[in-house]
Amino acid sequence: MAIAEPLTRNEDGIATAVAILAQRFGERLSTSGSVREQHGHTTTWIQNQPPDAVVFATSTQEVSEIVRICADHHVPIVPFGTGTSLEGHLNAPCGGISIDVSGMNRVVAVHPEDLDCVVEPGVTRKQLNEYLRDTGLFFPIDPGADASLGGMASTRASGTNAVRYGTMKDNVLGLQVVTPDGSVIRTAQRAKKSSAGYDLTRLYVGAEGTLGVITEITLRLQGIPEAISAAVCSFPDVEAACNTVIATIQHGIPVARIELLDTLQMKACNAYSKLDYPEMPTLFVEFHGTEAGAAEQAERFGEIAAEFGGGSFSWTTREEERAKLWQARHDAYWAASALRPGARAFATDACVPISRLADCVRETMEDIAELGLIAPIVGHAGDGNFHVSALIDMNDPAEVEKARDLSARISARAIAMDGTCTGEHGIGQGKQPYLERELGPALDVMRAVKRALDPQNIMNPGKIMRL
Amino acid sequence: MAIAEPLTRNEDGIATAVAILAQRFGERLSTSGSVREQHGHTTTWIQNQPPDAVVFATSTQEVSEIVRICADHHVPIVPFGTGTSLEGHLNAPCGGISIDVSGMNRVVAVHPEDLDCVVEPGVTRKQLNEYLRDTGLFFPIDPGADASLGGMASTRASGTNAVRYGTMKDNVLGLQVVTPDGSVIRTAQRAKKSSAGYDLTRLYVGAEGTLGVITEITLRLQGIPEAISAAVCSFPDVEAACNTVIATIQHGIPVARIELLDTLQMKACNAYSKLDYPEMPTLFVEFHGTEAGAAEQAERFGEIAAEFGGGSFSWTTREEERAKLWQARHDAYWAASALRPGARAFATDACVPISRLADCVRETMEDIAELGLIAPIVGHAGDGNFHVSALIDMNDPAEVEKARDLSARISARAIAMDGTCTGEHGIGQGKQPYLERELGPALDVMRAVKRALDPQNIMNPGKIMRL
Repeated sequence: MAIAEPLTRNEDGIATAVAILAQRFGERLSTSGSVREQHGHTTTWIQNQPPDAVVFATSTQEVSEIVRICADHHVPIVPFGTGTSLEGHLNAPCGGISIDVSGMNRVVAVHPEDLDCVVEPGVTRKQLNEYLRDTGLFFPIDPGADASLGGMASTRASGTNAVRYGTMKDNVLGLQVVTPDGSVIRTAQRAKKSSAGYDLTRLYVGAEGTLGVITEITLRLQGIPEAISAAVCSFPDVEAACNTVIATIQHGIPVARIELLDTLQMKACNAYSKLDYPEMPTLFVEFHGTEAGAAEQAERFGEIAAEFGGGSFSWTTREEERAKLWQARHDAYWAASALRPGARAFATDACVPISRLADCVRETMEDIAELGLIAPIVGHAGDGNFHVSALIDMNDPAEVEKARDLSARISARAIAMDGTCTGEHGIGQGKQPYLERELGPALDVMRAVKRALDPQNIMNPGKIMRL
Repeated sequence: MAIAEPLTRNEDGIATAVAILAQRFGERLSTSGSVREQHGHTTTWIQNQPPDAVVFATSTQEVSEIVRICADHHVPIVPFGTGTSLEGHLNAPCGGISIDVSGMNRVVAVHPEDLDCVVEPGVTRKQLNEYLRDTGLFFPIDPGADASLGGMASTRASGTNAVRYGTMKDNVLGLQVVTPDGSVIRTAQRAKKSSAGYDLTRLYVGAEGTLGVITEITLRLQGIPEAISAAVCSFPDVEAACNTVIATIQHGIPVARIELLDTLQMKACNAYSKLDYPEMPTLFVEFHGTEAGAAEQAERFGEIAAEFGGGSFSWTTREEERAKLWQARHDAYWAASALRPGARAFATDACVPISRLADCVRETMEDIAELGLIAPIVGHAGDGNFHVSALIDMNDPAEVEKARDLSARISARAIAMDGTCTGEHGIGQGKQPYLERELGPALDVMRAVKRALDPQNIMNPGKIMRL
């Protein structure tokens, strides 16, 4: 028996599974309304659809047991890390069990000599970097939120450092996964590269929990650069800022971070983070290297920025100043939300070939103006990736419709520019119509993979695509 | 009807398909013995198993037609690029049709502003770099042979530059694939990153033609570095050379190439390429960067090498000298083969976490001595990847057995060290027993994917794993 689409609840199976799990896990199973709600989607405009129960797992063995019980009774499973995903990945549209792995938060091993480590999926990126502090190493992927590494793997997360260090796809060496029948597999050994069969590691990275539950992750680490310098640089308009980014990438400057914030976002950040940056389109940049190397990069970037009318900017190599700068960038989402108290952010995510970035952002700003929305723009511009957070009153259907329209226009535009409707947030529930438009016939292959690996459709059903 | 395992020939289906294809493709279908033999495996000790016919395809549409005809008649398909794979990937153990895509060798588009290009699968890496010559860009992946990019994608190839630029998995942005029912899909748009559904790109990269035929590839390109310097450095023993590599990687020096050749291999190279390098364990290295950056890297590397007893070495930035150096490295396989005229090379390929490289190579040399084999060692040491070419008389069963024993020992050792039985050659026919040992239960997931995407088992059957 498989969970049917359109999605329906298997009431008897759920009741039986919850009863068995309650007996087995005692107080580590919760059916309280607030816990359930907190384990559904909570971050954006997408409606909360809570699971029927939450089990707090502490080991791979326990995850395997839970999955077997759910499989026996045809009950959906939704893996949960920190709940920071943005496209409804955690919702349980036909009910089922949320497996909360936040307690699986041990750093299993660090191999400084091999520049890698092994972690449980509930370890967060900040926790890992704190743990690594004395090793001279760090884990570079930084989506802003202090997300769990299991969740980051599942959504193929990236963020500010991706322009230099890649995304989760590039930084996961191997995974331990509990498959939908409760078996435990390892996708790869710890060698830096391999041609040993199908690349299951990258099949599970970005699968959004629809093919199995990640229970252990082997990650590449990086040496902390000898020198790090950061700066903030204002531009007369967004196009000038984008064109600076394009030229920086095209010149091969190995910038570690290059982030775009539009005027509205800068106003929001100044207010929220108590800063006094010029309220103009701005790039936040960071360079990593040797002392000489980082200085050389900064100098070249400065020349490019000046060509496009970039204002004077001050460099800092002091860690606390850099931390303040990047905290403000990471708080951009909350800062934006604070622009309109009571509103919810309708987050979008698009990524285009770098040469199209200025066009895509400019046309998007025209849309925002035409629709009369309050919608600041931020972006991991070095990858051609940007976000718009339309702040809307969820009780006003006309506003919701406008935000949907904006999101649809951005997705269509990015796809028309040979880009994608999601650079890093994933598909979840929110982006499904656009995925169909973007990859069309390839979805049949994805569906065949899903049906083969999860024939009952119990792993996070209703995500990525209709079957 | 599916092709059964153990593999059997579908005589009637093959005869019918060959007749239909002959009518459709005329002289572009060949059943000549020499053409067929040349399209089976030809490079190593593995026995040649020719296809029944070879079709020279010129377009995606034609590949789709051929696949449909083969699918209709349950006939195996083996995609062919340049024939340089090493593990029997091109053999047709139950007959069928070789689709030769070497004529699909157009560079479809170059997008210098986005640092990417689109090519047909028969374009070779040298052809692409020749084509790119005036753009200031290059494609870095370099497995030695002038392989086709379709073949390189299919085997997840890497080679000398991978230590800095990654492998094919990191450098393919998207693929066009003809699936086993003749449909044509695209796996991704041209954005630099994406979270749009399952990572089909990386499912087909390394699938060795067992899931579909790659008919177009979008590749990332790199800017040609402002400065390139290369050098050759000798060491008192292999361990000292390996330890220099380990320290170089651990210090985060972004070396572009760092290649190990043992004493026997250096003798072979001197003889074959008419060189006069010291006949000692040697590293060939190359640095890419700005003038200052490359010089800084070289200086730091020199300090490390000296610590481990590395001899004096001369740097060169002259292109023709570098070309000569790397040609000698690329000819290492042929140079090794020439050490024992009439012998065939029994090529191995292992990759271990970098900290275990010296141990793995030392223990392997002890095996070679114990078995009394002539077997030089070369390696992409910066990735922990090395090869041994045992030169054996294929008519002497005792020698063949010794070479098999050596290969089995190396694979088992690499796996025991948390490494892989293949860093870059792939599984094909030759490495199947070791894949089972390396990933065990994960093979059930690979089999499920294979059965779902190729239910008739017509795409390159008998490769990677038994179903």
